[in-house]
Amino acid sequence: MAADRRAKAATLDLRRRLLSSSCRLFFPENPVKIIRGQGQYLYDEQGREYLDCINNVAHVGHCHPTVVQAAHEQNLVLNTNSRYLHDNIVDYAQRLSETLPEKLSVFYFLNSGSEANDLALRLARQYTGHQDVVVLDHAYHGHLSSLIDISPYKFRNLDGQKEWVHVAPLPDTYRGPYREDHPDPAGAYASEVKHVISSAQKKGRKIAAFFAESLPSVSGQIIPPAGYFSQVAEHIRRAGGLFVADEIQVGFGRVGKHFWAFQLEGEDFVPDIVTMGKSIGNGHPVACLATTQAVSRAFEATGVEYFNTFGGNPVSCAVGLAVLDVLKTEQLQAHATNVGSFLMEHLSQQKAKHPIIGDVRGTGLFIGVDLIKDETLRTPATEEAEYLVSRLKENYILLSTDGPGRNILKFKPPMCFSLDNAQHVVAKLDDILTDMEEKVRSCETLRIKHPPGSTGPGCRAAAGSRPSNLEQGNLVIKSAP
Amino acid sequence: MAADRRAKAATLDLRRRLLSSSCRLFFPENPVKIIRGQGQYLYDEQGREYLDCINNVAHVGHCHPTVVQAAHEQNLVLNTNSRYLHDNIVDYAQRLSETLPEKLSVFYFLNSGSEANDLALRLARQYTGHQDVVVLDHAYHGHLSSLIDISPYKFRNLDGQKEWVHVAPLPDTYRGPYREDHPDPAGAYASEVKHVISSAQKKGRKIAAFFAESLPSVSGQIIPPAGYFSQVAEHIRRAGGLFVADEIQVGFGRVGKHFWAFQLEGEDFVPDIVTMGKSIGNGHPVACLATTQAVSRAFEATGVEYFNTFGGNPVSCAVGLAVLDVLKTEQLQAHATNVGSFLMEHLSQQKAKHPIIGDVRGTGLFIGVDLIKDETLRTPATEEAEYLVSRLKENYILLSTDGPGRNILKFKPPMCFSLDNAQHVVAKLDDILTDMEEKVRSCETLRIKHPPGSTGPGCRAAAGSRPSNLEQGNLVIKSAP
Repeated sequence: MAADRRAKAATLDLRRRLLSSSCRLFFPENPVKIIRGQGQYLYDEQGREYLDCINNVAHVGHCHPTVVQAAHEQNLVLNTNSRYLHDNIVDYAQRLSETLPEKLSVFYFLNSGSEANDLALRLARQYTGHQDVVVLDHAYHGHLSSLIDISPYKFRNLDGQKEWVHVAPLPDTYRGPYREDHPDPAGAYASEVKHVISSAQKKGRKIAAFFAESLPSVSGQIIPPAGYFSQVAEHIRRAGGLFVADEIQVGFGRVGKHFWAFQLEGEDFVPDIVTMGKSIGNGHPVACLATTQAVSRAFEATGVEYFNTFGGNPVSCAVGLAVLDVLKTEQLQAHATNVGSFLMEHLSQQKAKHPIIGDVRGTGLFIGVDLIKDETLRTPATEEAEYLVSRLKENYILLSTDGPGRNILKFKPPMCFSLDNAQHVVAKLDDILTDMEEKVRSCETLRIKHPPGSTGPGCRAAAGSRPSNLEQGNLVIKSAP
Repeated sequence: MAADRRAKAATLDLRRRLLSSSCRLFFPENPVKIIRGQGQYLYDEQGREYLDCINNVAHVGHCHPTVVQAAHEQNLVLNTNSRYLHDNIVDYAQRLSETLPEKLSVFYFLNSGSEANDLALRLARQYTGHQDVVVLDHAYHGHLSSLIDISPYKFRNLDGQKEWVHVAPLPDTYRGPYREDHPDPAGAYASEVKHVISSAQKKGRKIAAFFAESLPSVSGQIIPPAGYFSQVAEHIRRAGGLFVADEIQVGFGRVGKHFWAFQLEGEDFVPDIVTMGKSIGNGHPVACLATTQAVSRAFEATGVEYFNTFGGNPVSCAVGLAVLDVLKTEQLQAHATNVGSFLMEHLSQQKAKHPIIGDVRGTGLFIGVDLIKDETLRTPATEEAEYLVSRLKENYILLSTDGPGRNILKFKPPMCFSLDNAQHVVAKLDDILTDMEEKVRSCETLRIKHPPGSTGPGCRAAAGSRPSNLEQGNLVIKSAP
């Protein structure tokens, strides 16, 4: 199946005909055809090797042999639903329970992080008898109807906000209302949540849950100030609601210091529900929800069965177990700490050198580089970020941007990402930023190279970007002539 | 992984401790531990072979080597998201399009039938600008919040019916208001849908879609009268809504005569959206939604991306392609027709012999046997059905019941189910029914055997079932002393 069966142009043509354009390609103007993956590398149809800095799903590395073998061995003997007894599902639940606070002792298995978050919503509503949800601004919790409703990142572009959804400000100490110079940003942001709850209650609304990624990712790789989530949990529980920690992008040792990102908040901090997805199965569709006996019992009391056809099948569980094995055997959590610290340090050196880098933040192999047009206003350097990512791609490095201003470079590579990889990326970043600065000094236009004849959003965004004033040390993208 | 790692009692104990009891086991009083599957057979930890008459997910047979090999070969080289170009996803879309009416030409790939039905809801609402849904009574469309809302089978036991959901009677010609003696049951049931639509419209509601399984399964293996869906589609489209055919349980050749169950309605009948799941990947978590260019474009016009992390990955598509290959190579659709007809014929002979069998209905390998307490009222023989299923299990035959009265035996085996298998099941069914009749004649109690010390719903249901009058030829379950 690694053989290339069709010219890239023909694949693209078929894709345009048969798939919806709502399902987007990376680099839509000149997409990459990937036919092989290994570790932290992806290979295109011409055998060119790309360094993958973004795939947090291929958690222990693309096509990890231990995981592939576990799937195959189980596929050979049995793959059926969880209505029969099987050891894999109980072994897997037990192994996961060992990574979590004791209170989180009941497990539900599903096929995607979205399914897990949807179930979290059902459980929270059943347990509390309340309907409403508090979420963070710019959050994304999944592609299902119920989750679009609690994802400002999505609903702002669609039907708008439902009356049962309440949005609290993102605890972003770089761009938000309370910044690094505030004496108590954690308290200040948590008070905002308290205020959101009170406003809702004044309207007669009742809070079922607070949902947040333990480190908000789509919102721009945000590291909430220490103590924030503990205080939010207090406010939310006082309102009768549950705390849901969405670990779909950030769990399974990525943050280095801890196995779960919510543990950055301290030993005593225990969410009521934790949802897992993406990295959990290294690409195999698996997901999990962990909760307390009390929450689970409230759901059981309805007498309604929860049946998920594929959820918790022996193959999905074998894959999940293999991922846990590899994380342990290869000590990838400690590795994430080492490589992540090294990468943070070297990116911070780049910040001192290149004024476009406004902030470098992160923990373990979850790192954000916030690109700005100017230091005072911290205006998102959206076009520059897009240009930079396209130049990195020309250099066979896959990186992406996120955040409301699409100006934050996201590092969330497979966990086997090495010190050499980190050094290589930083060197290329340095080269490109230096070149960009030179181009700006000589008044050259920064233009993203596209293949002849291509049209589309990527191209339009670059060609049509507004001209900005050339300021000392900052970059400008001029309109194409 | 086929080795048994733990005594069955220990597995059960761990499961009770770590999983929610909302996730139910078959035969909760004495569940089966299955450690191996092959074709239409499942094997427990003691090597006992069970004939699987119910697993419509293991569509081309448990652990089919072609499917297992396809998954493995692709897992070895690449499993990543659909933001890169890849041939598998376009090949798969193309192959699926060849099985469908030309109009259904745009494909979305997901991880479960539930995800597909949720997307169908989003697409229908976006396209029509309406919110409401018409569904059939007792229908089940998935485990997500949005789908519980449109599943009377579920919402009747939970929060109740939402104001945007409208329930039409099940087109059941055996138990519904219009039966086999009605001159035009299709027209009569379709008029009921028309009436439901009008009532909703009078309240100012607007219909986005009609959702139905092409053959309602959870509702009791219902075969809607010919012409029903075409007329429903007319009514629904006149109201500005879309017709969604849920093929999750019944697609991929199961009905024998056609590849899709909706095609039983004739060449001209084309739904606006078709959803697929379960059998599509022979157990691998895959699902698909097919729709028209017009519906897809309305969704694209929002400018909002649809990204499904695992959906359409190269492994899921390789598995889906392999299932299509096996269906073709082994001519399983024709096989379903042959074996299904044979099974229907022999079950009908049993109907003539055993008065408890009220109705035998089906097409291909989708068959229902409706068990009744009396011929006049057609009272569901709920306890008798449970007893029968437990006796079949003792004979190593896995069958289940469904329908609002849990009295309909459901045949939906892997498609490799053979003539011998059919003969074997019917012979056992005959033996057990004969024995049941003898027991009733000699006033013996029909009691489900449970292991000593077991307690639980299955046991309680049998022990606590109400005594009924002994009628000529019918069965009675007496209260246990």
